[in-house]
Amino acid sequence: MAELTHFDGAGQAHMVDVSDKPVTDRIAVATGWVKMRPETLAHVTAGTAKKGDVLGIARLAGIMGAKRTADLIPLCHPLPITKVTLDLVPDADLPGVRITATVKTTGQTGVEMEALTAVSVAALTVHDMLKAVEKSIEIGGIRVVLKDGGKSGRYEVGA
Amino acid sequence: MAELTHFDGAGQAHMVDVSDKPVTDRIAVATGWVKMRPETLAHVTAGTAKKGDVLGIARLAGIMGAKRTADLIPLCHPLPITKVTLDLVPDADLPGVRITATVKTTGQTGVEMEALTAVSVAALTVHDMLKAVEKSIEIGGIRVVLKDGGKSGRYEVGA
Amino acid sequence: MAELTHFDGAGQAHMVDVSDKPVTDRIAVATGWVKMRPETLAHVTAGTAKKGDVLGIARLAGIMGAKRTADLIPLCHPLPITKVTLDLVPDADLPGVRITATVKTTGQTGVEMEALTAVSVAALTVHDMLKAVEKSIEIGGIRVVLKDGGKSGRYEVGA
Amino acid sequence: MAELTHFDGAGQAHMVDVSDKPVTDRIAVATGWVKMRPETLAHVTAGTAKKGDVLGIARLAGIMGAKRTADLIPLCHPLPITKVTLDLVPDADLPGVRITATVKTTGQTGVEMEALTAVSVAALTVHDMLKAVEKSIEIGGIRVVLKDGGKSGRYEVGA
Amino acid sequence: MAELTHFDGAGQAHMVDVSDKPVTDRIAVATGWVKMRPETLAHVTAGTAKKGDVLGIARLAGIMGAKRTADLIPLCHPLPITKVTLDLVPDADLPGVRITATVKTTGQTGVEMEALTAVSVAALTVHDMLKAVEKSIEIGGIRVVLKDGGKSGRYEVGA
Amino acid sequence: MAELTHFDGAGQAHMVDVSDKPVTDRIAVATGWVKMRPETLAHVTAGTAKKGDVLGIARLAGIMGAKRTADLIPLCHPLPITKVTLDLVPDADLPGVRITATVKTTGQTGVEMEALTAVSVAALTVHDMLKAVEKSIEIGGIRVVLKDGGKSGRYEVGA
Repeated sequence: MAELTHFDGAGQAHMVDVSDKPVTDRIAVATGWVKMRPETLAHVTAGTAKKGDVLGIARLAGIMGAKRTADLIPLCHPLPITKVTLDLVPDADLPGVRITATVKTTGQTGVEMEALTAVSVAALTVHDMLKAVEKSIEIGGIRVVLKDGGKSGRYEVGA
Repeated sequence: MAELTHFDGAGQAHMVDVSDKPVTDRIAVATGWVKMRPETLAHVTAGTAKKGDVLGIARLAGIMGAKRTADLIPLCHPLPITKVTLDLVPDADLPGVRITATVKTTGQTGVEMEALTAVSVAALTVHDMLKAVEKSIEIGGIRVVLKDGGKSGRYEVGA
Repeated sequence: MAELTHFDGAGQAHMVDVSDKPVTDRIAVATGWVKMRPETLAHVTAGTAKKGDVLGIARLAGIMGAKRTADLIPLCHPLPITKVTLDLVPDADLPGVRITATVKTTGQTGVEMEALTAVSVAALTVHDMLKAVEKSIEIGGIRVVLKDGGKSGRYEVGA
Repeated sequence: MAELTHFDGAGQAHMVDVSDKPVTDRIAVATGWVKMRPETLAHVTAGTAKKGDVLGIARLAGIMGAKRTADLIPLCHPLPITKVTLDLVPDADLPGVRITATVKTTGQTGVEMEALTAVSVAALTVHDMLKAVEKSIEIGGIRVVLKDGGKSGRYEVGA
Repeated sequence: MAELTHFDGAGQAHMVDVSDKPVTDRIAVATGWVKMRPETLAHVTAGTAKKGDVLGIARLAGIMGAKRTADLIPLCHPLPITKVTLDLVPDADLPGVRITATVKTTGQTGVEMEALTAVSVAALTVHDMLKAVEKSIEIGGIRVVLKDGGKSGRYEVGA
Repeated sequence: MAELTHFDGAGQAHMVDVSDKPVTDRIAVATGWVKMRPETLAHVTAGTAKKGDVLGIARLAGIMGAKRTADLIPLCHPLPITKVTLDLVPDADLPGVRITATVKTTGQTGVEMEALTAVSVAALTVHDMLKAVEKSIEIGGIRVVLKDGGKSGRYEVGA
């Protein structure tokens, strides 16, 4: 179990000691998607001019969700987030909405959980806004695509 | 936009008025999965006898997450949840972990968002526990498979 | 001190016992405004087509704020809110933004604090979004304009 | 929209990147008031010797509210607050209560939203404590009167 | 394990299904104490006329803590609390402060955890206020002394 | 009252200004226990192999509780916790469970309240898990046993 840092030698969960890790600039990018029927997506793309702005609401929910990460994930360290952006783009080929979240901090641990949480909460919010017109909406593809700034070096999907 | 109940006639977001909806017993079941490499899954299945209990921790996080749904999803009504269970099962074929959440309430709106949030937070926690050994973990398949108890009738996947 | 229900006979704060109060439909409407310079208001009114949507973000923050009322106001009872709407209207004569929040519940206490909190959080959010262009923004006029559904009867400003 | 820092070039809301801003000592002072009838204010000023201590309770609510700012205001950065004080002073001329909040941090962004939130939550709490005796209570005058410590220099009302 | 209702047949934690339990009036009373040196207690008893009101602050923290019970205790059901009172009494014989919390609800599960949480948070707050003058403060005696209103009948210590 | 740092010269509560205190590594250890009947303790010790894991659940609740300290204790500063561990050990002589929490931070104030809160929430969770089989469970012995890293020097019980 030694490799799973969230457990001690006896296999008991703990919040890892990061006191001696250096304070560095860290960044993480996570992605995900919300799949739906074409006619459901039409409701999203029709939302213009502040009317029925599904993506704007999900974006805000994702930003606020990132700030709740340490409340939700039991062994996550609280972190002073310095940046959160979310992009939500309709994709007719999916069909559905593609979500990308970028989070930065200047701290002692990485922010990939914050980025993943931002994507998840944004995706759940898209689902919530559209569930009145489709029950078969599916959320998936949630993963880290970029992580940099800690001692484990740069990780980038497809790089 | 009339079909999207989270928007009013002018397209502005609101928390829908459910005052006049009857108080009924409601249930929702949602599922999802966390995909990982076989050697990562081995860390999960090796966690026995309270040592390194990844699934037990994720189960608890999912239960607690269900209670935070109205905090996270902007237009969700706060609900008096009466039951939450989470099943997390290792699946060598995925390979990874399959998650099912069941939520019940006696109230005026459904609990599918609570079930979906429980699955999402449990999945994020599995990811968090294992990210030290694999960065390419992916979360997906998050959807409602059963919903019953409201005026829109029973919805069941594959039924 | 007998009239101040949040204190007991000894003058000590308590959360009032509402166990014996009937469960009734209750509504409250509160208003407020955010005053700013005309050129600051121009930034608000220029925010169209989902670009720079100050009012949409403040509306959402107010709805979410209403759900946090019992967390923020020490002696408020937690309540199952059944509806929240916020209207934010630019007013060139103020100049600024006028805010109205309507909250409903089916419960044992009123929801005027939820309506007032919704207005306050929406007003603070408008201020936050605009503080980069004006530091002299002022929030005011926060009060209850309608309350109905409890044993104290209907209260309506100007009625 | 370039001037409104909470929006990106496309007009989409984001939490601004402050990673490269220096960590400096920052202070903000905000004020506000709660207006009421003279006989309502008499309830406040009669609250002595720990009996019916409206102002003490509102002071505490304001301090705790300052710590919730990043939870309430969507695009606010979480900040390690290093000081919060609230003064609540009865004013027979208003008539009502005048509130002043002072907040300090050592961080990368200012604390004016924390000071404004502290004033707002304290004012809402005063309102809540007194609403049993007066429904026409009004909250106003909420604004920043001092801000110092960031790159935009010192701002002081009337200075 | 069958007797421990928070576990299912397989020993996995869950939030127990209370959907079919009747909605009844429920009450719980819990007690506890904070032990300190006589000279530390003198600081508490000297706090009069709203100056240095340790007990008033701890009372409020306990009331607010009761509302956070379901957030803190993983398998607790969220409950619409209808009453919370806390009594904090200096006791020269302890020496220290004796705390009693009374909580009521009209719901499907008991409120003993809410009462115990109220006592605990009040005790922690007393400790926090006094830790500058004594580090050896001890909290103890936290237990349920009365519980009534559910199917398991009345429980009363010493009755 | 000068010695009670949570009050100012006028006896009013405030969050103490720590802006000028140096950022240092700080540690605190707190302990406590949950006393029960031997047959109740048997339920705890029988919980093996992830089945009915009372202590694992309480450990997690304690870790998460530590992160909520500044939300619960009114005048506590929010702190970037860098480590939390909890040990829960069955003790047949008590009989019951002994709890120890260790918390670290790199900050401007100590973490003894975080350690005490972790112990309290873990103890409350043990109580909650076992209350179905025993109502007379008692929590006690909650105190700081080690504190180091601030200007007041090292404090250690029995040292």
